[in-house]
Amino acid sequence: MKRKIKEILGIDKPIIQGPLNWLTDAHYVSAVSNAGGLGVLGLNAGERESAKNMEERINNMRREIRRVRTMTDKPFGLNVAPQSNDPALDKYTEAWLQLMVEEEVKIVILVGDLAPYWIGRFKDHGIVVVFRALQPTVDNTKAAIDAGADIIVATGFDEGGTVPYQGIGTFSIVPLIVDAAEGRVPVFAAGGIADARTAKAAFALGADGLYVGTAFMMAIESPLAHGIKVLAVEANANDLVMYRTVPAFYRSLPGELPNKLLAMSKAGATEEELFEAQNTYVGMRDGMLFGDLSKGYASFGLGISVIHSIRPVAEIIDELMKGVPA
Amino acid sequence: MKRKIKEILGIDKPIIQGPLNWLTDAHYVSAVSNAGGLGVLGLNAGERESAKNMEERINNMRREIRRVRTMTDKPFGLNVAPQSNDPALDKYTEAWLQLMVEEEVKIVILVGDLAPYWIGRFKDHGIVVVFRALQPTVDNTKAAIDAGADIIVATGFDEGGTVPYQGIGTFSIVPLIVDAAEGRVPVFAAGGIADARTAKAAFALGADGLYVGTAFMMAIESPLAHGIKVLAVEANANDLVMYRTVPAFYRSLPGELPNKLLAMSKAGATEEELFEAQNTYVGMRDGMLFGDLSKGYASFGLGISVIHSIRPVAEIIDELMKGVPA
Repeated sequence: MKRKIKEILGIDKPIIQGPLNWLTDAHYVSAVSNAGGLGVLGLNAGERESAKNMEERINNMRREIRRVRTMTDKPFGLNVAPQSNDPALDKYTEAWLQLMVEEEVKIVILVGDLAPYWIGRFKDHGIVVVFRALQPTVDNTKAAIDAGADIIVATGFDEGGTVPYQGIGTFSIVPLIVDAAEGRVPVFAAGGIADARTAKAAFALGADGLYVGTAFMMAIESPLAHGIKVLAVEANANDLVMYRTVPAFYRSLPGELPNKLLAMSKAGATEEELFEAQNTYVGMRDGMLFGDLSKGYASFGLGISVIHSIRPVAEIIDELMKGVPA
Repeated sequence: MKRKIKEILGIDKPIIQGPLNWLTDAHYVSAVSNAGGLGVLGLNAGERESAKNMEERINNMRREIRRVRTMTDKPFGLNVAPQSNDPALDKYTEAWLQLMVEEEVKIVILVGDLAPYWIGRFKDHGIVVVFRALQPTVDNTKAAIDAGADIIVATGFDEGGTVPYQGIGTFSIVPLIVDAAEGRVPVFAAGGIADARTAKAAFALGADGLYVGTAFMMAIESPLAHGIKVLAVEANANDLVMYRTVPAFYRSLPGELPNKLLAMSKAGATEEELFEAQNTYVGMRDGMLFGDLSKGYASFGLGISVIHSIRPVAEIIDELMKGVPA
């Protein structure tokens, strides 16, 4: 399967960098690709303010893609979250597809609910499709492969950001999804993979590759605020606060706003009330990019426990590769 | 560490059977011990009705301990959940300790919040102490070892029953607790361990042994209702419903009562309201021992996905041992 991954993605090491909204840029993404993994640009890559409209957003991303090209000639990907399987309801994904065609970006991570229409459209344009369900299931795995997905990501509850709503941990989701894929395509494990041990465990569970968020965000090259990196080095999974929100739960380093959200959650606030109170997704920018936990939150996966330093992407990949079977 | 486990527990294979309230008896526990693991009697072992008072409860357990002795000469343990670290507030744990001394049961699983007083008391009587925190942390791991615990169980959110309230999956809790133990005592991993892959992954994460609930409950010898076993063979982690309750969350096979609890949970019912509505812990008896999901629930760990048959305990242990390093 390792050779198959190299054929599909064109990368030397079976590791995909998980993109977070606001928290990628060309410098970081090219560092991952240059080190042999797959760097991925996420929404608002290289930005500090939300684009005013779709056209500006697309042009900003075009600039960031071109910047990546000045820093690496290795493959990299773009993260896209379809809003609907019905193209009439989703002009957004069509715009990203056209951008990728124009700029010749060859790999897309389609994240969220299953959208077979979009898997088909990207495939029609010769783009490699990595499907990452918000909640991986036997059914959406089989359906995504049937629709043409080249790689499946099995994301466990141990990850950071928008966690899978069924609460199925990495330890349990990986064998379930590996069995569902029946060897038809490679399965990448996500959630808590941050050192040699956890990388080795992912392969023991049947994974063919690793999808890594938190560990890479802690790299020197990542746009995450340095102050947040310093806090995260000292923290472990016991320290994170977990509160309900849309669509499930979020975890964050403790701080003024996260602690308030935890208290609201315990007191029975609705998911929608919490989503508003956390300043929706802009709270991620304020907390993680700007390092302000009075207005934002700082979401990490549970792999935070085994991360003890801020170091170059290349060293992180070396560490993870110690867990990859020869 | 493997030899150390044999010295501490007197068993050949590094596997402890997790006891569930209502769902153990002498037949089942002795089968685990005879197959080389550690069988453990849980509360209400061999019972179908709650004892009227503490004296009756202790005498029922005395009878069950003696029944185990007629079926095996191998070591076995007793599960005890201290109510308080203050002995004046916990006559209950003193009664269990006296029973163990009288009946010469040599291994206790102390489950729940850290109670250093009780760890010390059991140790004073020459009883081996396995500490299983409801929520494992760096702090309670270190404190339990300092108080004399011989083995630590690192329980992940992937388990069944009363799941750890911080939501830290098996994949992430095991390395955290292994590092906290610093090699002073063996660490057993719990939560989702149900086949050779998951056993292998637990060791990759740094565990020294396995603590196995759901996989053993699905054995021919276990008192779990046959109808529930049949449903569970067909189910996977995607099928389980998860609802809030005291003290955190519960997972169950779907059914009349569990579906109602899920709806109540989504509608914002408090943990206490849900605990009452699920018929507290008696709901476990009604659902799992009697197989009635209109009055009870049927809690499983997420390892349910990889369990495809009802078979003898000895075969389950053979399967798990394929994941144990030589």
